[in-house]
Order: sequence, then C-alpha cells, then structure tokens
Amino acid sequence: WTDCCDQLFPGFKTPRLWVLPITCFILEIILIILFGTLVQYDHETDAKQWHNQSHEDYENDFYFRYPSFQDVHVMIFIGFGFLMTFLQRYGFSSVGFNFLIAAFALQWATLMQGFFHGLHGGKIHIGVESMINADFCTGSVLISFGAVLGKTSPVQLLVMAMFEVTLFAVNEFILLSILGTRDAGGSMTIHTFGAYFGLMVTRVLYRPNLDKSKHRNCSVYHSDLFAMIGTIYLWMFWPSFNSAITAHGDDQHRTAMNTYYSLAACTLSTYGMSALTAHDGKLDMVHIQNAALAGGVAVGTAGEMMLTPFGSMIVGFLAGVISVLGFKYLSPILEDKLKIQDTCGVHNLHGMPGVLGAIVGAVTAALASTDVYGGGLSDVFPDVASGDVTATKQGGIQAASLAVTLGIALLGGLIVGFILKLPIFGAPPDTICFEDSIYWEVSCEIIILYILYFFQSDLQVKC
Amino acid sequence: WTDCCDQLFPGFKTPRLWVLPITCFILEIILIILFGTLVQYDHETDAKQWHNQSHEDYENDFYFRYPSFQDVHVMIFIGFGFLMTFLQRYGFSSVGFNFLIAAFALQWATLMQGFFHGLHGGKIHIGVESMINADFCTGSVLISFGAVLGKTSPVQLLVMAMFEVTLFAVNEFILLSILGTRDAGGSMTIHTFGAYFGLMVTRVLYRPNLDKSKHRNCSVYHSDLFAMIGTIYLWMFWPSFNSAITAHGDDQHRTAMNTYYSLAACTLSTYGMSALTAHDGKLDMVHIQNAALAGGVAVGTAGEMMLTPFGSMIVGFLAGVISVLGFKYLSPILEDKLKIQDTCGVHNLHGMPGVLGAIVGAVTAALASTDVYGGGLSDVFPDVASGDVTATKQGGIQAASLAVTLGIALLGGLIVGFILKLPIFGAPPDTICFEDSIYWEVSCEIIILYILYFFQSDLQVKC
Amino acid sequence: WTDCCDQLFPGFKTPRLWVLPITCFILEIILIILFGTLVQYDHETDAKQWHNQSHEDYENDFYFRYPSFQDVHVMIFIGFGFLMTFLQRYGFSSVGFNFLIAAFALQWATLMQGFFHGLHGGKIHIGVESMINADFCTGSVLISFGAVLGKTSPVQLLVMAMFEVTLFAVNEFILLSILGTRDAGGSMTIHTFGAYFGLMVTRVLYRPNLDKSKHRNCSVYHSDLFAMIGTIYLWMFWPSFNSAITAHGDDQHRTAMNTYYSLAACTLSTYGMSALTAHDGKLDMVHIQNAALAGGVAVGTAGEMMLTPFGSMIVGFLAGVISVLGFKYLSPILEDKLKIQDTCGVHNLHGMPGVLGAIVGAVTAALASTDVYGGGLSDVFPDVASGDVTATKQGGIQAASLAVTLGIALLGGLIVGFILKLPIFGAPPDTICFEDSIYWEVSCEIIILYILYFFQSDLQVKC
Repeated sequence: WTDCCDQLFPGFKTPRLWVLPITCFILEIILIILFGTLVQYDHETDAKQWHNQSHEDYENDFYFRYPSFQDVHVMIFIGFGFLMTFLQRYGFSSVGFNFLIAAFALQWATLMQGFFHGLHGGKIHIGVESMINADFCTGSVLISFGAVLGKTSPVQLLVMAMFEVTLFAVNEFILLSILGTRDAGGSMTIHTFGAYFGLMVTRVLYRPNLDKSKHRNCSVYHSDLFAMIGTIYLWMFWPSFNSAITAHGDDQHRTAMNTYYSLAACTLSTYGMSALTAHDGKLDMVHIQNAALAGGVAVGTAGEMMLTPFGSMIVGFLAGVISVLGFKYLSPILEDKLKIQDTCGVHNLHGMPGVLGAIVGAVTAALASTDVYGGGLSDVFPDVASGDVTATKQGGIQAASLAVTLGIALLGGLIVGFILKLPIFGAPPDTICFEDSIYWEVSCEIIILYILYFFQSDLQVKC
Repeated sequence: WTDCCDQLFPGFKTPRLWVLPITCFILEIILIILFGTLVQYDHETDAKQWHNQSHEDYENDFYFRYPSFQDVHVMIFIGFGFLMTFLQRYGFSSVGFNFLIAAFALQWATLMQGFFHGLHGGKIHIGVESMINADFCTGSVLISFGAVLGKTSPVQLLVMAMFEVTLFAVNEFILLSILGTRDAGGSMTIHTFGAYFGLMVTRVLYRPNLDKSKHRNCSVYHSDLFAMIGTIYLWMFWPSFNSAITAHGDDQHRTAMNTYYSLAACTLSTYGMSALTAHDGKLDMVHIQNAALAGGVAVGTAGEMMLTPFGSMIVGFLAGVISVLGFKYLSPILEDKLKIQDTCGVHNLHGMPGVLGAIVGAVTAALASTDVYGGGLSDVFPDVASGDVTATKQGGIQAASLAVTLGIALLGGLIVGFILKLPIFGAPPDTICFEDSIYWEVSCEIIILYILYFFQSDLQVKC
Repeated sequence: WTDCCDQLFPGFKTPRLWVLPITCFILEIILIILFGTLVQYDHETDAKQWHNQSHEDYENDFYFRYPSFQDVHVMIFIGFGFLMTFLQRYGFSSVGFNFLIAAFALQWATLMQGFFHGLHGGKIHIGVESMINADFCTGSVLISFGAVLGKTSPVQLLVMAMFEVTLFAVNEFILLSILGTRDAGGSMTIHTFGAYFGLMVTRVLYRPNLDKSKHRNCSVYHSDLFAMIGTIYLWMFWPSFNSAITAHGDDQHRTAMNTYYSLAACTLSTYGMSALTAHDGKLDMVHIQNAALAGGVAVGTAGEMMLTPFGSMIVGFLAGVISVLGFKYLSPILEDKLKIQDTCGVHNLHGMPGVLGAIVGAVTAALASTDVYGGGLSDVFPDVASGDVTATKQGGIQAASLAVTLGIALLGGLIVGFILKLPIFGAPPDTICFEDSIYWEVSCEIIILYILYFFQSDLQVKC
C-alpha cells in the first residue's frame, strides 16, 4: 500500500511520527492530574452526601436529565461525526477526529466550565448537568471543526479544541453568570460562538491553492447516505438538546415540544427552497443534510420560553429559508470575496440560524410577563421574576450577549488561527486535503481506488 | 452530469420546477396559520398552568413518556427511513422523502388528531402524548409509503400523506372514542390501516410496464447493510413504541416486556422459515429485514393486556412464520393476479401481522377478568371495569374495529389513489422508477454508475 | 447467481438445507414451553399485584431502568452487530447472526438466570431488571462470537450460545449469590467470561489452513465506516451499560459518570498508542474501533464504587494502552504460538481490560469505608455495611471471583469447542471463511464482485 500511496501522492512526506502521540499523552496526563486535584463528586453522585440528606431516589437529577444527556451524547458523536462523512475520501477522519477531539474536549470543558461556574470551596463539583454542559461545549468545537474539515491535522484540531473550550467557557461565564442571559439551547453560546470562531480560523488558514484537492472535496453516493445518519440523529434529538438543562417540569417539556415543531417546519421550507433554487428542480443533498437542522439552532434560546408552537414554526420556517439561501448564494461569495473556505457550510447551519435564534430570544424575552408565565416566570427569567430587571431590559441583555459572543468568537478565532499555522502541527499540503490515507491505514480496496483515480483525471467531475 | 443523465435516460423530461416548492410552502403556511389559530400548550407544557397547580416536577408526563417518545421518533425517521434504503439507487429518496413526508405528517396529524379528540374549548392542547400520537399517525403514512416506494414523486407522497392522516384520525376517532376499542400499539389503527391503505393506492397506481425499471428494483450489498440499520432500530425500539401511550406504571412496563419477548420469538421463526423456504437453504435479507419485525406488529393491540410472555412468544412466532410465507408465496400472487405492486412487502410486515394482532387483541380482551387484572382492569379496559360492557362484548368491539379499519383503509386508498393519478403531481415514467437521479443531484461517481449501467445490459441480473 | 457462486467457489457444497430451520424451530418451541411453565410477571409488571399495593406510578422500576435498558439493547444489537461488519464480505452475517443469536440468547438467559437467582415459589419472576440481565448475558455470548467470527455456521453459534448462557448463569450465580461479589458492569461476569470462553472455543476450532481465506479477512473503506457505527454506539452507551442495574439514586448517577470519564481518557490513550505503534505514524482503524472501548470494560466492576473521575480516567488510560499493545504485539503471538485465531481481537478489548477491571474492582473494594461511602455503603457493599465481611475480605472475594470466572470460562470453552466440532453443525470450509454468500442470497452486484475477484488474484492485498 505504501507504494500505491507514493504513486498516488508523489512527493508527500508522511507527518512526523511522534507529534500526535505526544500531544495525546501530554493532554491526557494534564487532564488526569487536574481532575485529581480539582474535581469532586457533587451531592447527587457522592454516596455519603446523597445518603446524608433525606431524598427519594427518583428526586436524583439523574432521572430528570440522563435520557436527555444520552440523546445529546448521540448528537455529539454520531450526529456531528457522521454528518461530516459526506466527503468521499474523508470518512475515517470525519468520524475518527470527531471522536478524538470530542473525547478530549468534554474532559477539558469539565475543568474550564467548572472553574468558571462550578467551584465549591475550591473544588469542581460534577454530575449529570456538568456532563451535559461539557457535551454542549464540545458541540461548539465540532461546529468549528466543520469549517476547517479536511484541511487540518488531528494535532491542529486538538490545539484548536483546547483554546476554543477555554474561550467558550469565558464567553459562557460572561453571558450566563455576569449578564444573566438565558440561552438554554445555546443559539449564542454554542452555535453562534462555534460557527464564527471556526469561520475566523478557516479564514486565517486560507489556502489559495485548495482547488488542487477539489476532486476529493465532494461526495459519493454512499458517503451521502452515511451523512444522512448524522443529519437524522441531529434532527431527532435536537428537542433533547434544547431541553437538556432547562428547569425541571413544564420547562423541559415545553422546550422539547417547541423544538420539535420548529424542526418540522424547517424541513418543509428546506425542501421547498432546495428545489426552488436548483437549476433543474432537483433536491440537493447538501441542503437536506444541513439546512433542515437550522430550525433546531434557531430556537436554541427561545425554546424554553413561551414561544408557542406557532412561533416556533415561524422561526423554523425562516431558518430553513435562510440556510438554503446561504448555501446557494452566500457561501460562494464568502469563499471568493472573503477567502473563507467553509467546508461544511457552518455559517449556513450554525452561524446565521444562531444569530436568528439570538434575536428571536431577545424579542421573546422582551415580551415576557407574569400574565403569560404565571409562577413559571422564575424558572425562565429569574431576574425578571425577582424584579431585578424588566422584561425589556432582559431583551436588551439578550441582544448585547449576541454582540459579546460574536466579538469573543471572532477575536479568539483570529488568534487561534495564527497559532494553528505553526508548522509543527503538521497541516496537510494543498494537494492532499480531504484525504484519509495520509492519517489512516487504508487497505484492501486498491482496485476501486485505482479505477476512480485514473478515470477521474479523464472526466470533468462536477462538485 | 446533466449530459450523462440525458444519455442514460434519453427522452426523460425533468419534473416541473415549481410543483414541489409550491406544495411545500403552501402546506407549511397553512399549517402555521392553523397552529396559530387552534393550538395551545396543555397544562403540562404551559408555564402558568403548570405552576398554578401543586405538583412535583417528576409528576410531569414528560418524565413518563419522553424516553419512549424519542425511541418512537428514531423508529419513524431512522427505522422507516433506512429500512427502505435497500434499493440500490433509491437511498436518497428513501431516507429523504421519508424525512419530508414525516415532517409534514406529524404537524398535520397534530391538527387532525387534536380536532377529533383533543379539543378543549375550541383549542387543541398539546404535549408529549400528542407528539407520540402524531408520530404514530406518521408511522401509518410511512407504511403506505413502503407500498408505493420508487414509483411516486415527492408531491404525490405529500398529497397522499395529507389525505391519509385525515382518514387515520377519523378511523382512530371511531375506534378509540366511539367504539371504546383498545389499541395502544396500533395493530389496527397504525399497521392494518397503513398497510391496506397503501396497498389500495398502489393497486390504483398499477404500472403494467414496471419491469422496464426492474434492474433497479433490487438491492446491492451495501444498500442491504444500510437497510439493516433501519431494521435493527425498529426491532430494538418496538417495546417503546407499543408501550409509549399505555397507562403509567405496570402497564408501560408490561407492554414493553411482552413486545420484547414477542420480537425475540419472531426472530427465530423468521430465520427458520427463511432458510426453509429458500431453494438452497440460504437466508434471504428481505425476510430478515422485514419478517423479524412482525412480532412487534402482532402484539400491538394485546401487548398492554395480560398476554403473558408465553402468549407474546406464541404470537411473535406465528407472526414471523406468516410474514415469511407472505413474502415467498403471497406477494408474487398479489402482483400477478391482483396487480398489487408492493415494493417493500408491507402486506407481509404490516398487513397480515396487523390483522393477526387485532384478532389476538380481541381474544385476549374477551378473556379479561378482575381475577387476572385486579385493580388494574380499569387501566386496560376501563369500560369493562366500569361495568359498561362485558369482557366478551369488549372482544366483539375489538373484532368489529378491525372490520371498520379495513373498510376505511381500502375505501380511502381507492379514492386517494385516483387523486394521485392527476398528472400535475409528476409521477416518474415506468422506465425511471426506483431511481434517485431524477429527484436529486447525484455527483462524482459517474464511473461506477457507467460501469454498472453498461455491464447490466449484458448480464442476466437476478432480482 | 448460483452459477457465479459455483464458478467463484468451485467444489463448495451448500450446507444442508434443514439444519438451521430445525434448530431455530426446536429451540424456540422449547423456549415457549418453558416460558409457559415457569415464567410469570413480577410484582411491577403484573396488573393485579401492582394495583394491590400502594405505590405511585413513578416508583415503578420501569422509570428507573428502562432508558438504561434501551441503551443496553442498542449496544447489543447495533453496537456488537455493526462493530463486526468491518470484514469486507461478512456484513450480512455479522449483523444477521448477531441478531439471531442475541434474540435466542436473551430468551434462554431469562430462563437460566431466573432459574439460578430469580425463583419465587418455583416460578421465574420477570421485569425490566431481568430484561437488562438477559441482555447482559447476551453481550457475553456476542463477545465470544467476535472471537470465532467468520469461521462458524449459524447453527454452531446457536449451540455455543445455548451452552455459554448456561455457564454464564452458573458463574454469575457463584459470584453474585454465593460469594457476594460486586460486578454491576460485568468486568468479570460479562467481559472476562465472554472473552476467555470465546478464545478457548476458537483455540479448539483452530484452522491451520485459514490463510486460504486471508484475502477476505480484512476490511474495505465502507465496511470500516459501518463498523464505526458499532464502535461509537458502544462507546456512547457504555455509561448506561455499567449503571443499568446498580442501586437507584447516587449509584446509577455515579457509575454513569465514572464510565463517561474512563472512556474519554481511554480514547486519547488509544489514539496516541495507535499512532505511536504504527510503522509510519498513521492511525489504525482496528485500534480505534476496539481499544477506545476498553475504558468501559475496565470500570465495569469499580464504576459503581467511589472510584472518583480521577481514578476512572487513570483506569481508562491504562486500558487503552494495554488494548492497543495487545492488538499490535500480543495477538500475532497468540495466533502463531498458541494457535488462537481471534478474529475481532476480543482478548484485547474484553479479555485483558476485563481482568484489569476485576483487579481495579478488588482494590477499590478493599479500600471501602464508611468514611467515604457514608450511608451509601449498604448500596454498594451490603456485606461490608452489615459487618458480615471486612472491606479487605470483600477485596479478596473480588479477586477470587476473577479466578473462578477464568476457570469456568476456559473449562467451559474447552468442552463447548469440542461439541462444536460435530460435523452436523456445518462449519464452512477453510477456503470460504469470512464470506457471506454461502449463508445469504447475495444479488445484483455481480459486476463489482467480479472486478474485485479477478483483480485481487493479481494484486498483493495487504491485510
């Protein structure tokens, strides 16, 4: 195989042997030491503390949140992982690097989020809610991964994850703890942050000669089916995602339902727009795989509020329209004019719908009143219920939070992008982007590969 | 690619550009308007109402039903969607149209089911139970989709879904609200109804020249593996499906367990029958993918009753036997004699096992007594427990419900079939059925497609 | 196709027609009779008993365990099934035989486990906990299946499952009921037992001429992606697996969290070791697919204890290192020197990590104290809490249990291996191992198959 590989990719030097192992080991050892020093069971996971107090077992938060956690977990590892397998020769890396950086990020996020808003007497207390929050933060990193997909080495991705998790925790702390923003499903903290951070990173890492790998930057029939596994799982479990850390009771219930209807409406507008914008009335898999999910992003902030199914469906409908239009008309402009090579189109799935979600959240918050929420106002808007701020001001805080998020994401992405340019991290050359075989042992299918390779050079391949 | 397509399918005119977008937008806008007019949060999703009453949060129905809902949701979108990817060139449409019509049907079902049995002061109240019911109704539409798979345009499918959901709600209302039938897992309301409706539609849409697309109406190795994802998910989560809307407590618990054992027994009889009926002792993927699920269908009605694991296993065993025999001997007869072209064999998976389930339910109901059910009788048979009907009469009602369901399904399918024949809906020509590339942009694998295409004409392909 | 098959595999006689059907039918009929005689609803699934006592519905064990059960169910049928689809021509058998033997084993396990530790007045009482236990026992059989994958007929597998389930129940009874061992996640009872049983079976079934099928004993690109579906599902739901039958409340919560962090740490050490041990710094899919899961195995015993996330991460880290080293250096030795042909490398994923988990469990148990566990000691170590044994002795019992498990597994595997050699069970010949088409109808892709076949003979295929 090595011979074949040399023949297919003449002049390519395999990345240095020791960089990835060293990075993995050092990061994990640091994590273990910090966990040993700083992390403790919270009062619901600690045997002594739980039994010290009088509870019924069914009052343990585990039973309120663990099913949602598992759904979120599936979105992170199957959803994001398989969504990115659409590339014909990058399936191992899509699932595999997704797996690696998510496994790292959720540990690091436990520490960073715990440091900023989970400290109790100098110790980080953890349980199912911190696990969900760690997965959420990981989701943000995976959104950024989508922007740079195919053009970065695993070491670059781990380094990006380390910085991005840290900045995520800072931004989350400013929003949720300092400003008192509400963002249960993370339209701002997760989607907007992850998208614009990733877009800035990919801007800094701009490759003028990326078209040398153009023939691999497209899908084949089966790879698009694998990607649909990711899409459908994200779509199905988004109600769990948005409701995973809302208050117990009506809040979780309502959030899940709002998201369910937003996504359904978004799906119809996505199919409509996809067929409408195509040159021959055909549907485009890229739109279906991505834009149909925008409805979940766009009710990330307002989903827990009394948005009503009616409101959710309007938001979802708009999100689908915006997202398809973005794929069709805005992405080419971003690439040509702004030099932003956004492999998965995260600007269309997470960026614009995230901003929409933040705006919808601000408006919905500004309209909140005891008439509508009754005693439930203190669950959704504690600061409004306590009289600390008016509903209008809460809306203003929500809007300001969007600006803060955009600022931190763009500035952070700029700095981290330059860090990732360090040659030691082993970015792939322009000629071998979107290609598994430089990072993975690939075996036993030499013939098909040859056939594809030799024929492709003779054919005009449409991508 | 367009050139290739013209070359591969000479004379084919792409479907009219505007029909699908217009249909999607009009349907969704109607849905949004009706939701705005008619739909409200129920007392468990509305912040004010929930907090007005004294509850513990863990008493919210969300915690009793949401995990089941998510399993049902997976069955609808992954289970049905991927089960139908077995066709070699129809994977995008199988998953993609499944996605589209399910997203539409669940919204429309919320309205139709709410209109018939969820009205409170002129408003439809919704929560997790109505979401499950909407998914159930959607399942019925997807069963019918299986019968017409590969031979209908997405617009035809949306129109079919609109009418079928409406008739489903009518039938469900007659059974559950007027007759007092018990059918928690939907052997009648979902499976029998969906199957016979779909069979009648495909009968009306009979294509005498369908063998022109015969070479695509079969599976390839990888497409069968994708289909197994659908099968296994349906199989695993069927216990959640049948127990999703039964009464809390022992009822949900018992229903899930009965279904679990019925499916296990069905799997063994399916493997046995598949090897027994093959000409050379080999297993047939079609049987495994479908018949192994018949055990879930066949305990849809009786699963919540005191059927016992013993009874469930007998029913599951029989369902597997009947289903394989149907695929092997009945389906060819239906196609040749009755002109019913049943692409996925829904008669074998949903039709006959659904009827079996209805009969088992009627018998089990007729045998119900306080001796066996104790105080639980009022959960399973409220009319028997209250003395309104005897157990024997409940059994009779169950049997009559089967007849009603068959009647509405067949008559409804007849009418809707003729509606779908309107040329405006853009059905594919006989020569290009079971083919993704007339509805979807398909890229980058021209070579393999060519190879397959040119070789296939020279070879006797077994399907 | 039959002609093609004869041409591809000249001289191969298809297995006898009637053996598989007869086996399936006889086994299922025996199961049904035994269920009819012996099995009853427990007090939480029986309508009369549940309603006879005063409970709230949310106290039904269903709500504590059913979400975990469903996750375990996914691991058994999707996780194990797809993990084994990595072989290029054995996907149908991997998923399909997994499905068959799991459906059989869970019924048989209900009886065997019920017989040994679920009898109430001569009857076996069943509910969600027994369903989880039956799935656990099934998992053990599927581990053994991994060792013999590709080299056994479905009838051999059913016979193996029958004996293995029985011995599993004996071993489990000795450990949990007689010795008082703690092993909630089954490091010993499930993983160690399944692995060493399977390794001994494959040793007895040693095929000196297996290299005649060598060109099929490897993966292709898409088959590795399918296998990743299995890997990721196992990885995601392992926290549910280990916590599925621990005590309610803090115990389930803590176990899930410990497993979550162990797996995350294991993933980083796996990636690091995989790149480190490769000859060119590339990652090996075999390692990622398997070793990244070792962290779940290794905290199977200690996960419910106060291991702390810190301890869990150390254990997970070590498990990943050991597992990759096993794949790289130990497996070739086992095959060459000990004649153990371990297709999936279960020794590396389940064997060694299982032993590690047993040792970690023994040490953690020996360190248990009321200072650490408080009132929760009686949940985790009831014998220690009651003063029947000291913590140190509990540790000794745990260590002795590992020896008992290894003894029963190896002796059982030896005997069962010889039983499986009976010619009536129809093992495939050495030349046609790892090949679906001798058990399954495979259609419609003759051309690709031909291309692969003819080219392969000319090429040096690396596996």
